[in-house]
Formats: sequence, structure tokens, C-alpha cells
Amino acid sequence: MKNIRVIIWGFGAMGQGMADMLFNKKGVEIVGVCDRNPSFVGKKVTDVLERTDIASNVVVQADIEELLEKGKADLCLLATDSFVKGAYPKIRMILEHRINCISTAEEMAYPKAGEPELSRKMDEIAKANGVTVLGTGINPGFIMDLLVVALSGTMKDVTHIKANRVNSLSPFGPAVMEEQGVGIGLETFLEKRAKNELAGHVGFKESVHMIADALGVELSGFEQQMEPILTTVDRKSPYGDAKKGTLAGIHMTGQGKVGGKVMIDMHHPQQIEPLMEGTHTGDYIEIKGTPEINMAITPEIDGGIGTIAMCVNMIPHVINAKPGLKTMIDLPVPRAILGDMRDLLE
Amino acid sequence: MKNIRVIIWGFGAMGQGMADMLFNKKGVEIVGVCDRNPSFVGKKVTDVLERTDIASNVVVQADIEELLEKGKADLCLLATDSFVKGAYPKIRMILEHRINCISTAEEMAYPKAGEPELSRKMDEIAKANGVTVLGTGINPGFIMDLLVVALSGTMKDVTHIKANRVNSLSPFGPAVMEEQGVGIGLETFLEKRAKNELAGHVGFKESVHMIADALGVELSGFEQQMEPILTTVDRKSPYGDAKKGTLAGIHMTGQGKVGGKVMIDMHHPQQIEPLMEGTHTGDYIEIKGTPEINMAITPEIDGGIGTIAMCVNMIPHVINAKPGLKTMIDLPVPRAILGDMRDLLE
Repeated sequence: MKNIRVIIWGFGAMGQGMADMLFNKKGVEIVGVCDRNPSFVGKKVTDVLERTDIASNVVVQADIEELLEKGKADLCLLATDSFVKGAYPKIRMILEHRINCISTAEEMAYPKAGEPELSRKMDEIAKANGVTVLGTGINPGFIMDLLVVALSGTMKDVTHIKANRVNSLSPFGPAVMEEQGVGIGLETFLEKRAKNELAGHVGFKESVHMIADALGVELSGFEQQMEPILTTVDRKSPYGDAKKGTLAGIHMTGQGKVGGKVMIDMHHPQQIEPLMEGTHTGDYIEIKGTPEINMAITPEIDGGIGTIAMCVNMIPHVINAKPGLKTMIDLPVPRAILGDMRDLLE
Repeated sequence: MKNIRVIIWGFGAMGQGMADMLFNKKGVEIVGVCDRNPSFVGKKVTDVLERTDIASNVVVQADIEELLEKGKADLCLLATDSFVKGAYPKIRMILEHRINCISTAEEMAYPKAGEPELSRKMDEIAKANGVTVLGTGINPGFIMDLLVVALSGTMKDVTHIKANRVNSLSPFGPAVMEEQGVGIGLETFLEKRAKNELAGHVGFKESVHMIADALGVELSGFEQQMEPILTTVDRKSPYGDAKKGTLAGIHMTGQGKVGGKVMIDMHHPQQIEPLMEGTHTGDYIEIKGTPEINMAITPEIDGGIGTIAMCVNMIPHVINAKPGLKTMIDLPVPRAILGDMRDLLE
């Protein structure tokens, strides 16, 4: 039986992490990598990753069309976008080459929440070409949605859900510091928020809709808010510098309402050096109903590694799935793959 | 579209709990209940459950053959056994009537761990009759296996797993007090253990094999032990009475070894009134690897309600599944069903 053949499209932190992880797995091989970053194009993937232990001749190339044509891959890991609108033309191209697709785009974790029309099209194209497309990641994709749904499976009824992901931004680089407003003053924050220039967390809408659909409740509304986390002490991380009085990060909150009342309550404060003001990081889920569930994962599951692992670990499930657009609630649970990945193929 | 039609076989605490839960759900109805207990036979199910709010004429009957013949049910919830050997003839009969089956038998959560030959047969019979059989429950079935597997899905690699379910036996009745040796002295415990007269926890073997197969590691061995929890104070629960120096319960431990070393380490102490000696109940999972995961659910998810809910909540997934013998790692995650159960059918 041949190895599972994978293309990676997008060779930033996520794409590189997936390549690095795949090189350590059995029964799977990277047959192509696409990125337009001139500092990567033409370089061997193993050289970019400084993996001297791996024999692979795959070179980063800029032309995806050529790669999809000649690649004869089973699946493409797409790590280029956060929003469905940006990912859609790429996903369509992948599916039309009869290649399965896993996307890291946050909105792809439950695309019909924000883009029902594009979701319908992706489902159609995937079915017409006999392949499957899935969006996943640590969050959305696991912590604040799939894990909530799975825990609810032990319950006779559910009346209220609170999910709270409290994480540290300290390990992240300059791009994240800027997206999350680390070090800016309150006035700048208010201006940027008004202009929609701060990314914050993308995914509450997707997580809330995934939970509501899984449990079979109809949402009467969805809202989200972005508030500054102002530090009362100077904080410093490798790439972040938040002087007393400025932003250490951003606190996103979101609510899914049923019958006008909040049923799904999301909290996601992200900041550098949270412990400096006594904030312990972790993933917390509280579900009211019968029985009640009170879960804590401390510290939080690492977001970068978690997203990389989720995408790679879902490869066999996506290949096995019926054709179409799938989400995490449609497929068997993810799992660390320590053996040969082909053993999971049906 | 017709309601999903369910038969319940076995009307003890689990069967009654499932009936009670099903009466609160939409899109599903109970079409038959079988039990040989003379105090139930001939009585209306609603009378046994004291549910005056429900209009149902279903009567508990002793003859399952008649029920399966005339029932035209979609699925049978089988709540009669703990071991595959005892459940097998009943499961075969259900499947041969072309009815899907969900079993509460602990060993059915991963039957090939202990009964590979019967598992092969069940798979064959289910396929030949175009139906599906699943074993599930809170544990085995969720806490110490499926949840471990799902959390590992966020990891690049896994080196060691520890699962620890610390629960209270206080809510349970006289049968459980006896099975778990509550109130007996050390000598009696040693005698009963030697004669295999204490049930303890059934399911470590199944949980360990489910995890190992999901992750793709080959077990080099499996062992389990049963030790007494001797109380240093008098403890009392509604049905339990453990004087100082006697057993407050039993601590089961189990190990799955890979390459001769313990990789999967299970702990399951069960006792009455654990707080009297400072034991806080909860479900704890620690996974070493990248990243590390440290999860706690406090208190533990209620075992009785949890098993009832898992069985009922898996009904649509089992009806949707491809024919054959399935386990929790083959199917989409369980979820609380708050809407119409038929909305989950494909």
C-alpha cells in the first residue's frame, strides 16, 4: 500500500509545523509544498525546517496549479487564510483536482455559520469530485466547541454552557502582538477597534453555531464583544512590551442566545505574561444541566501545536469520510497517531 | 417521518433511567420493554416510573422474542449484562431481527479486547443483517477511554497516559455496596478477592485496548489489581456502613504496557463518603507528550446518569452508522440531544 500523499499549501508557522510533524509520522509523505514567500521558493523543505535527519527532495514552489496537477496527492493541508471568503477559491481548486482538503481557516471550522452560500457550493463541489473538505484547529475546532459537544454527550439535558479559554500570548511573535494590540494605549485601541483593525479571536460565531446545531437548539441571536486587557504593571515577553496602563492583550466575549436568553457563553482573554497579575491560564468548560460538568485543563492546550496536530491527526478521518463538506461533529474523534497512518484508512 | 422506535431490554436502574430520559425526548418513542422481574411484568412502564405526565400504553413483558417479532423497532437498548459472553446471545437475537443494538455491558465498550472471536461473529451477523451494534457507557465508553483519545488528538506525540476516576459510591444501593465490599473486613476482602467474588470495576482491559488501538500502539501486556480502601474513621452512606478499619470501597488499578513499560496507567478508587478522609472526587487525565495535557473534571461525571445519557444520545449515530460492530472511536462524538432526535438522522 502506497503512503498517504500530502500537499501543504501555505508555509508559515502552521504549514511548517505540519511538515515537521508529518516528517515524524509513518505511512504518510509530503509530495509538495506551495508558498509565494520569496525567501522560501526554490528551497528544500528540509532546509527551511533545518531537518538534517530527513531525506526529502521536496522544494517549496510558488505555482499551486502545477503542484495539484502533477502531485497526484490524496489530501491538501491549506494553511493560508482565516476567513471562508479568502479560502474558498483555493478550496474549490483543490477539490476540483479531486484532492481532499483540510483547512486551518478559523471560519472553515463551521463555515455555514457565516457563509451558508459558499458552504453549500463547497459541499456540492466536493461531492461532485468524490472528495471531502474539513476545517479544523484547536479553537475553533476543538476546545470551545467539539470538546463541549462531547462532554454534553454524558448529559440528559443541558440548560447553559460556559466556555472560557484563558491563554498566554507570550510565546507568539510580532504579528500576533500587533493583531492583539499588545502595548498600545486605550485610545489607540478604541480607534483600531472602531476601524476593525484588531483581529482578536476569529471563531466564536463558528463555535456557537456548531454547538447549537449539534445539540439541536435554534439560536435566536449571536453577539460578540472585544475589550482591552489593561495591565497595571509593566509586562514583557520575547516579542511583546506592555507598559503599565497599556494593553497586555484582548478579552473577547461571545454569546449564543436561545429564546432571547444567553445559553452559550464564550470568554477568551489573551494576553502576554498573564501570571504577572495572577491570571492562571487554562481551558474551562462549565455545563449546567443533568448532571452538571465542570472541566478544567491547566494550563491551556498550546494553540500553535494544537492546531498543527489537529490538522495532521484528522488526515485519515477526512480520507475515510463520505464526500462533501464536513465539520468536526460529523467525524470520529481526532487522536494522536503513533503508528502507521495507513492503519486508520478503511 | 415516523418516530425512532426503541425497545428497552432490561428494566433495572439503567433501563428505567433510559425510559425516563426517552419520555422527555422528541422524535423517539418506546415501543417495547422486556424484563423478567415478576414485580414489573404486566405493569405499564409509566406506572413503574411514576410518570403521570406521559401517555404510553407500553407494558413490561417477559417474552423478548415476541417483542422483537412484532415490535418493528429501529433499535434495542440492551441493559442486562456486564460481560460479552452473557450479552452475546441476546445481541445476536436482536441483530438477527434486523434491529440495531446499543449495549451497556462494560466489556461491549471494546469487546475485541477480551472476546475477539465473539466480536468477529457480532460484526459478521450485524453486517449480514444490515444493522449496527455498539457498546457504550460513562466508563468504559467515555471518561477513561474516548475522552483520553479525543484529547490526544491535539497532540503531536504521546509518551504516557494516566487516567484517574475518583468517585463516590454513596448514592448507590445495596447491590453495589456488596459488589464493592463496603463494610467488610480485610480478611473477608482477601478471601473474596481470591475467590473472584468482588466485582470491582469492569472495563480497564477494554479502555486500555481502545486507547492503544486508537493511537496505533501495540500492547506488550495488560495487568490489573484490586486493593482495599480501608477507612480510618467510621463512614456511613444511605446503603453503606463502613466501620473504622473496614473497607470503604475498592481501588482498582490497571496498566497497559508498550515495549514492556507502562504507557497507559489507570486508577479507579471507588468508596463511600470519600471526603471524610479528604479525598476529592473527580475525573483526571494527564497525558505526557507534546503538548502535555492536564485535565480535571470535578466532581466526577455521575456514573449512573452518564451511562443512561450516553446510551440514549448515541441512538441516532448508531442508526446512521455503516452496518457492523462499532466502538466509540468509530463514530462521531456523542452529544446531548435537545431537539428532535430525527434531525440527527442522515
